Amino acid sequence: MPVGTQGTVKAMSQEELKEMGFEIILGNTYHLYLRPGPELIKSVGGLHKFINWGGSILTDSGGFQVFSLEHIRKIGEDGVVFRSYVDGSYHEFTPERVMEIQSALGSDIVMAFDECAPYPCTKEYAVDAMVRTHEWAKRSLDARDPNQAFFGIVQGSVYEDLRAQSAQFISSMDTDGIAIGGVSVGEGKELMMNAVDWSVPHLPEYKARYLMGVGTPEDLLDAVVRGIDMFDCVLPTRLGRNGSLYTTYGRINIKNNKYITDFGPVDPECDCWACANYSAAYLRHLYKCDEILASRLATYHNLYFYARLMQGIRQAIEQGRLLEFRKEFLAKYRKHRASVHDEEARQDNINAEKRSYAGCRPQRPED
Amino acid sequence: MPVGTQGTVKAMSQEELKEMGFEIILGNTYHLYLRPGPELIKSVGGLHKFINWGGSILTDSGGFQVFSLEHIRKIGEDGVVFRSYVDGSYHEFTPERVMEIQSALGSDIVMAFDECAPYPCTKEYAVDAMVRTHEWAKRSLDARDPNQAFFGIVQGSVYEDLRAQSAQFISSMDTDGIAIGGVSVGEGKELMMNAVDWSVPHLPEYKARYLMGVGTPEDLLDAVVRGIDMFDCVLPTRLGRNGSLYTTYGRINIKNNKYITDFGPVDPECDCWACANYSAAYLRHLYKCDEILASRLATYHNLYFYARLMQGIRQAIEQGRLLEFRKEFLAKYRKHRASVHDEEARQDNINAEKRSYAGCRPQRPED
Repeated sequence: MPVGTQGTVKAMSQEELKEMGFEIILGNTYHLYLRPGPELIKSVGGLHKFINWGGSILTDSGGFQVFSLEHIRKIGEDGVVFRSYVDGSYHEFTPERVMEIQSALGSDIVMAFDECAPYPCTKEYAVDAMVRTHEWAKRSLDARDPNQAFFGIVQGSVYEDLRAQSAQFISSMDTDGIAIGGVSVGEGKELMMNAVDWSVPHLPEYKARYLMGVGTPEDLLDAVVRGIDMFDCVLPTRLGRNGSLYTTYGRINIKNNKYITDFGPVDPECDCWACANYSAAYLRHLYKCDEILASRLATYHNLYFYARLMQGIRQAIEQGRLLEFRKEFLAKYRKHRASVHDEEARQDNINAEKRSYAGCRPQRPED
Repeated sequence: MPVGTQGTVKAMSQEELKEMGFEIILGNTYHLYLRPGPELIKSVGGLHKFINWGGSILTDSGGFQVFSLEHIRKIGEDGVVFRSYVDGSYHEFTPERVMEIQSALGSDIVMAFDECAPYPCTKEYAVDAMVRTHEWAKRSLDARDPNQAFFGIVQGSVYEDLRAQSAQFISSMDTDGIAIGGVSVGEGKELMMNAVDWSVPHLPEYKARYLMGVGTPEDLLDAVVRGIDMFDCVLPTRLGRNGSLYTTYGRINIKNNKYITDFGPVDPECDCWACANYSAAYLRHLYKCDEILASRLATYHNLYFYARLMQGIRQAIEQGRLLEFRKEFLAKYRKHRASVHDEEARQDNINAEKRSYAGCRPQRPED
């Protein structure tokens, strides 16, 4: 799911998202609640109509944003009091209020209100946050709009027993799907995959599984292999705006001098609109000049790369060759990294990995 | 001609420009010379190939930018020494060098190197600048690439005799077209139209006439009536990015509160992509959230408005009813302004007029 924080996937039009083959996008309840507000969106018939998107929409619960913002807040059993980053005004999110907002937004899939514990956090805090998340999940389910699909969220931080306990609890509820939350908060790839491994065995086979805020192309493959079905991540859009582009042979920084005279496409194996019409050299020039078309081309290309990857994954699953597909994909994708002659790209990849886990969830409206 | 200062019409793709019906865009020699440089563009076969634009390109001579920048410079008979706004390095533009650069860019129409006198300026200065412009026009013509169409530029500031003298001089040269320059530099609408009126009688009937850096929809109509054929202006793109949108009933500021709940198109009489798919309320939301899609929708809409206006003008000329067309257009377009109930929009229109003449030429890479 491309991330459309404020009712728009940054730099893209809804027509382009459709053209790329996306059938569902994510909207952020926290941001849309503050601007333009659920009443306005409800008055025009919901978020689909407001933004003119014919596909599906999943809205998160705002839990991640509320808990990750530095603004003064109060966490109680009933809910969370927080300050708007827009105007400093005070607001309260409770499970019931969050369900009401998501109902007004009219999204197809709504998420339970949860407490996303930070990383690192003590086991004591993780237990508290998990228990509160479970209570809030029950209240969210009770307050849900029956016309919307409802997903519960597994928490439990980096603790094996808590993840198992939370997965069992959420699985026992009458939900339409289950998300694994509290990942991609700076814990690093190994701990993130642990959280998946500790949760998955307790999830029912027949419900959609959604790993929130993940991830890199490699993460998606590793998580799908572990049984995950759905993802959302700002990486393709945010990195695109910063000049970092995914290619068949690894992620590149288009601002590098090597692209000054590269008049071929960014990725010779890509058939997206950007690669079909514009060169790497032109894209680099647009970045150097801070032009809007740079963000447009790069975002389109990166989202297309993700769409194609997921299409490839689905096809490989149908053909019973997921592990081969993953191996083939990674053999090419890691080529940059393996090359000793391409130290610059390698270092860029390493730095990006480090950043990825801290930064691939939308906090501020930048994404 | 939409303005593509740095090899891109801000926020637009080349496919969109074509879709709107534009057949020619403007590129700025000054900016393209500094970044990415004429050698690079030449090496790939010219600006058309570098930016993937199948239509025509006119490049200005850089004279306007060089003379309007505040950076240290030296004006001599041979040319102008100026400092790059990018890195502070020194560069010299002479008529021969500017022709060489435009040849490397491979544009379809190139402009003579001229001195654009500021406003206000003394008659003494205006004479000096005009004489230098004439000398440079001859040298530009001598140095031109014969594969490109060449336009001379009339100067003369706000002085009737100088405009007549300059128009006669430039008309005597073997050019493919003639531009009226030195307008839209803060002199206001009346003096600008005077410059046109004083120049036009001396121009040959059979050559294209281009009024540089103009203007508002009303300016275009007023200038076409006076015999002008071609225009370039950043107003539709720059104002679009700032939330100011042209409509059949006048220019509006989409950020105004009245658009919060306006779920109709920005202009009910417009059939552009933006108006067909997105509401004024959504566009306002995108502006308030500083989203890229706001600039995209508004720029597309404004450029489409200009394209439609010019199509209407061409059709009216063919039908021999230009003055009626102008009257009909303005009767609707000035409706906002005439309404005493719409003081906000009126004031906005007035302020915009004031700004227009100082700001509708590209100086910095912002446009």
